[in-house]
Amino acid sequence: MKIAVSGVYQSKFGELWHKSLQDLTNEALNGVLKDSGVIKEDVQAVYIGNMLADESDYRKHMGGQISEYFSHNPSVYRLEAACASGGIALNVAVNAIQSGQVDNALVIGIEKMTDVDGERINQAIMMAGSEEEYTAGLTFPGLYALMANEYLRKYKASERDLAKVVVKNHYHAQFNKLHAQFPFAITQNQVIHSPKVADPLKILDCSPISDGVAAVFLASSKWVKQHFAQNGVYLTASQVASDSLSLSKRKNLTSLLGTQIAAKNAYQQAGVGVDDIDCAEVHDCFSIAEILALEDLGFYPQGEAIYHLTEKEVYLGGKRPINTSGGLKACGHPLGATGVKQVVEVTWQLRGQATDRQIKNPKIGLTHNVGGTGGTVAVHILQN
Amino acid sequence: MKIAVSGVYQSKFGELWHKSLQDLTNEALNGVLKDSGVIKEDVQAVYIGNMLADESDYRKHMGGQISEYFSHNPSVYRLEAACASGGIALNVAVNAIQSGQVDNALVIGIEKMTDVDGERINQAIMMAGSEEEYTAGLTFPGLYALMANEYLRKYKASERDLAKVVVKNHYHAQFNKLHAQFPFAITQNQVIHSPKVADPLKILDCSPISDGVAAVFLASSKWVKQHFAQNGVYLTASQVASDSLSLSKRKNLTSLLGTQIAAKNAYQQAGVGVDDIDCAEVHDCFSIAEILALEDLGFYPQGEAIYHLTEKEVYLGGKRPINTSGGLKACGHPLGATGVKQVVEVTWQLRGQATDRQIKNPKIGLTHNVGGTGGTVAVHILQN
Repeated sequence: MKIAVSGVYQSKFGELWHKSLQDLTNEALNGVLKDSGVIKEDVQAVYIGNMLADESDYRKHMGGQISEYFSHNPSVYRLEAACASGGIALNVAVNAIQSGQVDNALVIGIEKMTDVDGERINQAIMMAGSEEEYTAGLTFPGLYALMANEYLRKYKASERDLAKVVVKNHYHAQFNKLHAQFPFAITQNQVIHSPKVADPLKILDCSPISDGVAAVFLASSKWVKQHFAQNGVYLTASQVASDSLSLSKRKNLTSLLGTQIAAKNAYQQAGVGVDDIDCAEVHDCFSIAEILALEDLGFYPQGEAIYHLTEKEVYLGGKRPINTSGGLKACGHPLGATGVKQVVEVTWQLRGQATDRQIKNPKIGLTHNVGGTGGTVAVHILQN
Repeated sequence: MKIAVSGVYQSKFGELWHKSLQDLTNEALNGVLKDSGVIKEDVQAVYIGNMLADESDYRKHMGGQISEYFSHNPSVYRLEAACASGGIALNVAVNAIQSGQVDNALVIGIEKMTDVDGERINQAIMMAGSEEEYTAGLTFPGLYALMANEYLRKYKASERDLAKVVVKNHYHAQFNKLHAQFPFAITQNQVIHSPKVADPLKILDCSPISDGVAAVFLASSKWVKQHFAQNGVYLTASQVASDSLSLSKRKNLTSLLGTQIAAKNAYQQAGVGVDDIDCAEVHDCFSIAEILALEDLGFYPQGEAIYHLTEKEVYLGGKRPINTSGGLKACGHPLGATGVKQVVEVTWQLRGQATDRQIKNPKIGLTHNVGGTGGTVAVHILQN
């Protein structure tokens, strides 16, 4: 069965102090229903990807909360897998439709982070790491710094090379003024000379703290045919894989096994090869993370992605632009929203609605969403 | 497609101060794999139902944590819907198998509550309620007391009638010494004279704070045929429905619309009628909750369940025993574990493994799991 992406919505990402979790939820529900052309009563199930509402809003049981938007008691679910919460919510929604339990499902990824006490948010984020790591004082920047150091050592690359990821993603974000948290270009020197967070990562190697919401309305192609003139974009693969929380339990620090497994299964499910991918949104929570992603997804051999980042092929206008939204770094990273927003961006590209950052005639796109340092990974493939 | 319940496990419920969340997880994984006769590497996906690990263990991203038990990177998910976390985890696992994404899935419901600071746990539990309710000072006992008062007024019943639920469930629990938190009988007078919590509910009308874990291994009947001699018990319906978080937004305080919708859909999915149900585990978080459940599930007309609770039909040996495990009240209520434990109990009954509390030759059983005051409801039907 083919799953149609029949509606998408993304809020502006950033410091949205004037909007509550509830405001953002309603904004996304209204937005995605309008885009899909369906009415509230059509929605059969709602899947919410969220990591931090417990801490940011003292909110659990978000399903019951969202039920109040509807009058017909749809089935409702909240999924949590750290920064991959949105990606796994998409996956269970796809399964629900493919199983025949429902004909359609609404997926919302949401996070409010910027107006919460920093200490509280930092503590909550570290709950996604392994106990041995956080009792040793390691933070996520610290963990990704370990991976970055190992990569730079192994492949004789430099901090200037890492910065190329950031320069590219900020370059793209300037064409995404409506949605990106930082819609402006920055230079390699600015990255290099920004304050160190965890050697070799500087503040500008790190994705920001963000508020935001993204939503996707999925439906079986049969249901869409009964309700819409056009089918639009299809989700042709949805895969999730896991790995140990702790880096110390892994054999290799310079690749994520979860990404490799989810990607392999996704290519097989969609029946496409790596070279068929025209664009991708990958999980650049830190500059090193995008480099590992490009290799683990099979776009470049191990140790080589870092040397392709100044080349046209990964930029708008190139063979396979990466993170046209600006990525997590420049578009923003509201944790639970990210996996869903990636699918929104690729859908806009495949529909030809990506405005100033539109890729020429893309057919197939991929999204890659990581929880923690790779404890959970979700990969989706979309096609016209 | 039929979904086989190929393995089950339940820990003792109670004050398990000597076992951590991780200990209980490992105990359940070992137990359910042993019961099903499969090995770790057979498990294709893991779904975890849990509400409070954020507060009880400063733990998020439980999927990544559980991945460390395995060596083959299965897909992993955490579901949260307050006390229905276990029920919705079962539902998404069923969908994953029915969709064909996986051939099998392991579902774990787990909660650690008793060794956490009481204030912290109480605050966390109230995050499952509506904002207007908890800012007004309402607690869950208070909310269920509102429903109880309305029921008693409307149907001219008494507090002594409510107590019959508790007497029955404690009666059953004495035959479940291995798993129940309170495996002993109590009298109607003991309930009536126990301290008031929220009028008309006394402390003995309320389910306890508990630690515990339950696990179920589900597989497609095709996969089971390739791996087992016997198919055992089948899940023939899995349904979830929602309702407003807030009681103030509902038309009726004496029934849960979520239960009615999920039950109707479940009977239809399984192709069975109310009268076909031989036993049921229903969500008696408070005495009034079981009464509402018995009516909303269609076992009795509105306003009548309370008058059947001393009759043999709801007791062991009767026509349709309710809560042979002891229910949430006497077996215990580790929140995320409850929905999964209900399926474990009914599976034992259908297999003929319920020891001293075995029902004679049951064919069809039902489980009913509620989040909050009915914001989420999951109903499952199992058959031999």
